[in-house]
Amino acid sequence: MATEAEQLLQIRQQIDTIDEQIQQLITQRALCAKQVADIKTQGGRVEAVFYRPEREAQVLRAVKARNTSVLSDDDMARLFREIMSVCLALEQPLRVAYLGPEGSYTHAAVLKQFGSFAQPVPVSTIEDVFKVVDTNQVDYGVVPLENSTEGAVTTTQDCLISTHATVTGEVELPIHHCLLGQSKQLHTISKVLAHPQALGQCRTWLRNNLPGVKLEAVDSNALAAKMAQEHADVAAIASEQAASLYQLNILKSHIEDAQNNTTKFWVIGRHAPTPSGEDKTALILSLANEAGALLRILDSFAKRNISMTRIVSRPASDQKWDYMFYIDITGHQQDPAVAEALAEVQTNARFFKLLGSYPVSPLN
Amino acid sequence: MATEAEQLLQIRQQIDTIDEQIQQLITQRALCAKQVADIKTQGGRVEAVFYRPEREAQVLRAVKARNTSVLSDDDMARLFREIMSVCLALEQPLRVAYLGPEGSYTHAAVLKQFGSFAQPVPVSTIEDVFKVVDTNQVDYGVVPLENSTEGAVTTTQDCLISTHATVTGEVELPIHHCLLGQSKQLHTISKVLAHPQALGQCRTWLRNNLPGVKLEAVDSNALAAKMAQEHADVAAIASEQAASLYQLNILKSHIEDAQNNTTKFWVIGRHAPTPSGEDKTALILSLANEAGALLRILDSFAKRNISMTRIVSRPASDQKWDYMFYIDITGHQQDPAVAEALAEVQTNARFFKLLGSYPVSPLN
Repeated sequence: MATEAEQLLQIRQQIDTIDEQIQQLITQRALCAKQVADIKTQGGRVEAVFYRPEREAQVLRAVKARNTSVLSDDDMARLFREIMSVCLALEQPLRVAYLGPEGSYTHAAVLKQFGSFAQPVPVSTIEDVFKVVDTNQVDYGVVPLENSTEGAVTTTQDCLISTHATVTGEVELPIHHCLLGQSKQLHTISKVLAHPQALGQCRTWLRNNLPGVKLEAVDSNALAAKMAQEHADVAAIASEQAASLYQLNILKSHIEDAQNNTTKFWVIGRHAPTPSGEDKTALILSLANEAGALLRILDSFAKRNISMTRIVSRPASDQKWDYMFYIDITGHQQDPAVAEALAEVQTNARFFKLLGSYPVSPLN
Repeated sequence: MATEAEQLLQIRQQIDTIDEQIQQLITQRALCAKQVADIKTQGGRVEAVFYRPEREAQVLRAVKARNTSVLSDDDMARLFREIMSVCLALEQPLRVAYLGPEGSYTHAAVLKQFGSFAQPVPVSTIEDVFKVVDTNQVDYGVVPLENSTEGAVTTTQDCLISTHATVTGEVELPIHHCLLGQSKQLHTISKVLAHPQALGQCRTWLRNNLPGVKLEAVDSNALAAKMAQEHADVAAIASEQAASLYQLNILKSHIEDAQNNTTKFWVIGRHAPTPSGEDKTALILSLANEAGALLRILDSFAKRNISMTRIVSRPASDQKWDYMFYIDITGHQQDPAVAEALAEVQTNARFFKLLGSYPVSPLN
């Protein structure tokens, strides 16, 4: 029987052989990617479209579907996300604008969608993300759409009405809350500060673990962290990132009650994706102020078996008492049933804007 | 002749076939990694060492050496860094402590060294990085060693004297400076703020592009960014990250004069790497206060053809007028010549501590 050292040596030699083969294949793949780019730029076309969100979604779905590895489906998909990212960067690193302030968080959404070989471009407002996409300064933008902590992002909603950009993808990021403080022990805490919605999201944990401790709502979790930095008996609910930023200890991670606490982002770009096989379509509309108007819209989708995955209303800025509806449905605008439903909806709407059809995210 | 669409379809089918093969190989590789882990945990050993820095360095060097791809050597190595990272995380995601405050930057060093499947653990001080490594709370720590902007990091130097941890690796990150401001136009700027060393590092660019504009030194680049946020005519020299954090425009990137502007980090852990074929050895010593003491040390290395890659002196905290020398040499402590030199040096030193031997980083 081989000794442990011999066994390990043998497996490592196997790994070395496998690595050589992987490298040969990645080399071939990069060459193919280069050929695609060369074909697309034949004749010196100025803005060749190298990145096809629908194609990437299909590749990642196939990777997950055929995965039989000890690696999880998601880890395998993340690896292929990187392989595609590096092949794409070969010809033209994608420039992706994102909202800076919440820094690491939106940046994480960019990395998740475009891989680490893309080129993230931080800008200072959501409006600027739309502007730099609309004016061709970047290839894509990533904007927060809705946030379990802060609800729908109204600036994004407003920008969507006027932008020339189209929605090309969705990214979801799970949100985790931590309890942060100068102390490392729960019993030294006399007050917990957080944004009211964060307090709400951690209510059960707080009740069970810090009964009787005062809970105080402040404007943001970042502000809470800042105040915890100043007062030893104060704890804050905030992100892991805030702990490092404000030099606080993480007393406890994952204190959120709900497991499915996520922030949703949209990717915006100038090139509409074609159908990927599993898509959503986003639209905005406002309705004539008459009875049953919304019902008629809903019926246009329902009778064609089209699910509405999201509907959010918001007062229109230009007309008192009028509402804009932000609606997501399943399917691609090129699907006959969807096209028919959209045409019908449009005739019943006062304002109608198709934001785009995009692949359902293959990444959890 | 095939149409463009036909050509693209054909190449995409090739890519799909290649992807299937890559996935099969990654699946095999992950299985091998699992076998390695199983062998190492036979008999239920509590702290099996899954991560071998020397082995990873060898794999990445081999990847770069045999690279003939259209991908750069570094991009190919970064991909393999991810493949190794996910295989390692399979059994036991590496927990890596790092210094929080400068957030994204040290975090980037962790990602560069351990890949995106490791688990970064932000702590609030450099002392804490050492503490959580020494007390087994994490597997590794990453600490800043020297910084072109701030010089040698004295806290790290002090902690190295007392820690039980050993140096297991090095990470270098290039530093890029940006000019940030509320405005997007250079001519509106009447003052540039920055840490004095950042001002120094961008001197040529500033002279050529902002002649006559007032330059003012402040305590940190972050403070400069904060002040630029408050005054429209002030620009700051800071990182891209600071632009997003302080909602400033990037007027210009890469304004540093030197191309090789880097921050160097050390990885610390509890398990000493064996020789990788290209290693460095780090030590600390203090010398008797007599003529020629340092010369004798240098000679011990030189006469054995051992290069000293770094020597930094620092006043010892316990003894007035005494100096600690932080020395890096080429080679591994198990190399006979190095072992001999170290033994000789030790007899000539008042204080002597071997910090460890570690693989030279294969990643640029």
